[in-house]
Amino acid sequence: MYLEKINSPADLKKLSLPEMTALAEEMREALFNRLTKIGGHFGPNFGMVEATIALHYVFNSPVDKFVFDVSHQSYAHKLLTGRKAGYLDDAHFAEDSGYTNPDESKHDFFNVGHTSTSIALAAGLAKGRDVLGGKENIIAVIGDGSLSGGEALEALSVAGSELNSNFIIVVNDNEIAIAENHGGIYKNLKELRKTNGKSSNNMFRAFGLDYIYEENGNDIGAMIALFEKVKDIDHPVVLHIHTLKGKGYAPAEKNKEAWHWTLPFDRATGKTTVNFGDGESYGAITPNWIMERAAKDRKFVVVTPAMPASVGLVPELRVKLGPQYLDVGIAEEAAVAVCAGIAKNGGNPLLVTNMTFLQRAYDQISQDVCINNLPVTMLMNYTSFDGLTDVTHLGIFGLAVFTNIPNLVVLAPTCAEEYLNMLNWSIEQKSHPVLILIPGNEVFHRSSCAEEKTFDALDTYKVEKKGEKVAVVALGDFYQKGEAVAAAIKSALGFEPTLINPRFASGVDKKLLEELKKDHVLVITLEDGITSGGFGEKIASFYGISNMKVKNYGLEKKFYDRYNPAGLLKELGMTTEQILADVKEILGK
Amino acid sequence: MYLEKINSPADLKKLSLPEMTALAEEMREALFNRLTKIGGHFGPNFGMVEATIALHYVFNSPVDKFVFDVSHQSYAHKLLTGRKAGYLDDAHFAEDSGYTNPDESKHDFFNVGHTSTSIALAAGLAKGRDVLGGKENIIAVIGDGSLSGGEALEALSVAGSELNSNFIIVVNDNEIAIAENHGGIYKNLKELRKTNGKSSNNMFRAFGLDYIYEENGNDIGAMIALFEKVKDIDHPVVLHIHTLKGKGYAPAEKNKEAWHWTLPFDRATGKTTVNFGDGESYGAITPNWIMERAAKDRKFVVVTPAMPASVGLVPELRVKLGPQYLDVGIAEEAAVAVCAGIAKNGGNPLLVTNMTFLQRAYDQISQDVCINNLPVTMLMNYTSFDGLTDVTHLGIFGLAVFTNIPNLVVLAPTCAEEYLNMLNWSIEQKSHPVLILIPGNEVFHRSSCAEEKTFDALDTYKVEKKGEKVAVVALGDFYQKGEAVAAAIKSALGFEPTLINPRFASGVDKKLLEELKKDHVLVITLEDGITSGGFGEKIASFYGISNMKVKNYGLEKKFYDRYNPAGLLKELGMTTEQILADVKEILGK
Repeated sequence: MYLEKINSPADLKKLSLPEMTALAEEMREALFNRLTKIGGHFGPNFGMVEATIALHYVFNSPVDKFVFDVSHQSYAHKLLTGRKAGYLDDAHFAEDSGYTNPDESKHDFFNVGHTSTSIALAAGLAKGRDVLGGKENIIAVIGDGSLSGGEALEALSVAGSELNSNFIIVVNDNEIAIAENHGGIYKNLKELRKTNGKSSNNMFRAFGLDYIYEENGNDIGAMIALFEKVKDIDHPVVLHIHTLKGKGYAPAEKNKEAWHWTLPFDRATGKTTVNFGDGESYGAITPNWIMERAAKDRKFVVVTPAMPASVGLVPELRVKLGPQYLDVGIAEEAAVAVCAGIAKNGGNPLLVTNMTFLQRAYDQISQDVCINNLPVTMLMNYTSFDGLTDVTHLGIFGLAVFTNIPNLVVLAPTCAEEYLNMLNWSIEQKSHPVLILIPGNEVFHRSSCAEEKTFDALDTYKVEKKGEKVAVVALGDFYQKGEAVAAAIKSALGFEPTLINPRFASGVDKKLLEELKKDHVLVITLEDGITSGGFGEKIASFYGISNMKVKNYGLEKKFYDRYNPAGLLKELGMTTEQILADVKEILGK
Repeated sequence: MYLEKINSPADLKKLSLPEMTALAEEMREALFNRLTKIGGHFGPNFGMVEATIALHYVFNSPVDKFVFDVSHQSYAHKLLTGRKAGYLDDAHFAEDSGYTNPDESKHDFFNVGHTSTSIALAAGLAKGRDVLGGKENIIAVIGDGSLSGGEALEALSVAGSELNSNFIIVVNDNEIAIAENHGGIYKNLKELRKTNGKSSNNMFRAFGLDYIYEENGNDIGAMIALFEKVKDIDHPVVLHIHTLKGKGYAPAEKNKEAWHWTLPFDRATGKTTVNFGDGESYGAITPNWIMERAAKDRKFVVVTPAMPASVGLVPELRVKLGPQYLDVGIAEEAAVAVCAGIAKNGGNPLLVTNMTFLQRAYDQISQDVCINNLPVTMLMNYTSFDGLTDVTHLGIFGLAVFTNIPNLVVLAPTCAEEYLNMLNWSIEQKSHPVLILIPGNEVFHRSSCAEEKTFDALDTYKVEKKGEKVAVVALGDFYQKGEAVAAAIKSALGFEPTLINPRFASGVDKKLLEELKKDHVLVITLEDGITSGGFGEKIASFYGISNMKVKNYGLEKKFYDRYNPAGLLKELGMTTEQILADVKEILGK
């Protein structure tokens, strides 16, 4: 066993080539141990084992600095930099974040989870080095479709003209993004692969960069030779290496999209070991609605920045959608602007992705869509604190980011009926840009919502139960929490509070709030996101000079990381019992 | 006179080539008439006259659809589409926004003022056309450095693989961005110009696009021939045309940067007719500070996404900064990430641009800088409602966008002394990302601020005058307004209110606000931006369940366009008199 003896890259450097080849297999076994049990990014990491060994053999980390894009392909790096326990030892899994993380190791420089950042971050390291007179190598690693993101393309252009010093970009070309590739640049990568890098049609050279192609990206010896050739190079160079995504596991080599990221699975069968039960899910409701809509509305077009799985659009459904489906590749800005154009020319665009990734297109939403007030529908997944809990993937900032853009109608449904009615209304109306939050909780059904098919009266909240003294304004997937709080108040305090489903996260129903003043003394707001800049603060401001008391419940403005959702709610004083206790105290009971 | 007879492109199509050549000169005279008197984008428009005539001669607008990037080069288009009065007739100048605007004409499809959007917007028009079965030509026009922006590069890649239908991209290459070009792709444009488009090193082909070069971009006949060649083409094509920026005015042809955009000027001398007086300005204080800082701190690096003029960095100063200056070209995302990298490697980066453009890098600020808590200083110009008033260039959204990002310290200085102390503190500290708002009002001096050189105690507001009953919390460049309100209250109501300079726009000073409860009944907040999601709402939320009354003053969540700043304040009830009247009413006096 070699891996057990490797506590830092220095230990790796003592090995011979055959020993390193054996090490590669041990590393794959370590990856299997972790990924079969807790899941994670599979394909990119299995493909990068040999190249990573060679990187650490040739370069001198952490003096020489690696930046791994999205961290998709950083597990092998972690194994070699003192973090093998997080893979070999089940008791230590939690110590490893699954992303590069400077808090874990001096060999990591950034906590990274969004795509397309490595070249620009590394260019900054290089510029910093140059200003300070340093001499180390700076290496950016990028692959898996990240190259088509604007930040990466901008940075290629910057590196191609503004850096005149050591800078190494490793383009890990495993022939695929997360799903299939989309974007002209991937056609160019293919052409370069086919010509062994010799085609004169070369995007990297066109950006002003030196370029070397290496076909044998899974050959440690070839990789060592390549990296030795460019070590201490005095100008920016792109190393285009061809690797096999998922190498070492037949199902992953065969079905690359399914194995980009995996849930815990059984190694023998390749089947997930997670039992989802057979309950309803928005993950099933959503693609059903999309397919029905597309069939009856030829103007309907689904656009995604490489996140079809975000709404359950598996390959068969994408094929069925045909020209009504447009994956622009990882390119959130273009995705939003393309939707603006489709809407302007009479189409009915639906943009789908995860909330955290839509942040990348704040300006396009504001300028391209909302200033022009175009009827683009944006459907967001992972909008809840109870979803992805990695610090780089939190959906909790979306309300603060998107509810303060003029003209944008942000809708927060509380049940399946309301969700589907909002979708249909949004696609059919021609007056507003709309962002719809897919609820992060289980699927609820509320027959009272079924008949409300229009949301033309913007910013009108729905009084679900008219009561007195206390009004509970419970937004979106926190509506059921609001119901529980209302029930607890009634039971403990003997009066029926008013329960409100605001529906519109982006506006204040001034008329209703004004009316509440008559027979209410306290309004509490519940929202699934940070309160700072979000929904409830707007209501607190509205009541600022009145006698109404307002308490906003939500998350703090904070980068939470890998938390326990239920525990966090308790810590924030947001359990039903804690909220009831607050209400009692405020009412002096 | 031909121009007078042209009310739509149909009138243009009746002209002969010699007549169109005469028309071009008349159009330049019309541009002179407007630009000498009210200023605007000069160089790009003077260079695009011939190409625009040819576009309208060959294509059938508005069935065929043009999208002009940033609208920098759309004036000639406006002259030919029924809006000549906005150029010929001084009384009608205000009817023309200076940007493309669908409210002005059916020949415009988007209100555009940020760069790099045209290709993606037009790709969306093309996709919409294809889904609806249309046949029209879709033409995107881009130039002046916009091509290096991520949204444009993403869209080139999308067009290069996902559109298999008519799509025409006109790259108007006038050899320069706003300032000099930065970015590897501009080296490629140059190589293509030098080889008459024949170099096999071609970024557009590398993105999967067809390509034609035309050297004579200012020759109407050559342009007509070019456009006729691609009219109704069945696939995407790039037309790379070489034009002369500022053509027809010697000073503009000579000094392209100075004449990209101009203030009103005297045609004979080329000198501006605006008298700035000789008072102090932040526009002079800022570059002075930058140059001093750079001289004594070799780790200090100024990074800008092509907006050096935003902080007065004229060409001579940029040359003097040498390696301590990095213009990444129009590439806001890369600019922010590069700063993260510089900070991580020990440098002291200062990012400079206009607030409205920093919106493009929301995600990079959140993920690359703030999750990693890196000491990047971002210095923003045009942060005030009383600055740029075009709907696409408003600084009023910045507080809502940036004060809700965890870890980011947003500082709002109230005078020159505080401004400089904040800059020095921010560059010297290593614990926080910081965004500093350049005040939008005149330069004030307050000696009480001179000695406060550290801002380590985050979110501590400064009590400028301790009083009673009413607290006026006046943020940043609204501090002087707060002083006036406080004075009016004292004079009218006979007591001294408390006057607070919060300094930190991104946090709540809970201790101080708690203390105010003892002897205050009303807190008013004043902020230079929309209140929705901004500063004051956080304070309203803090006091939600207390007896303290809170009134938030600021702008509405709205896309204001070309307003009169003083008039707007009055409309919003924000004059000193109106605020005093509110205070009286709330206090029941």
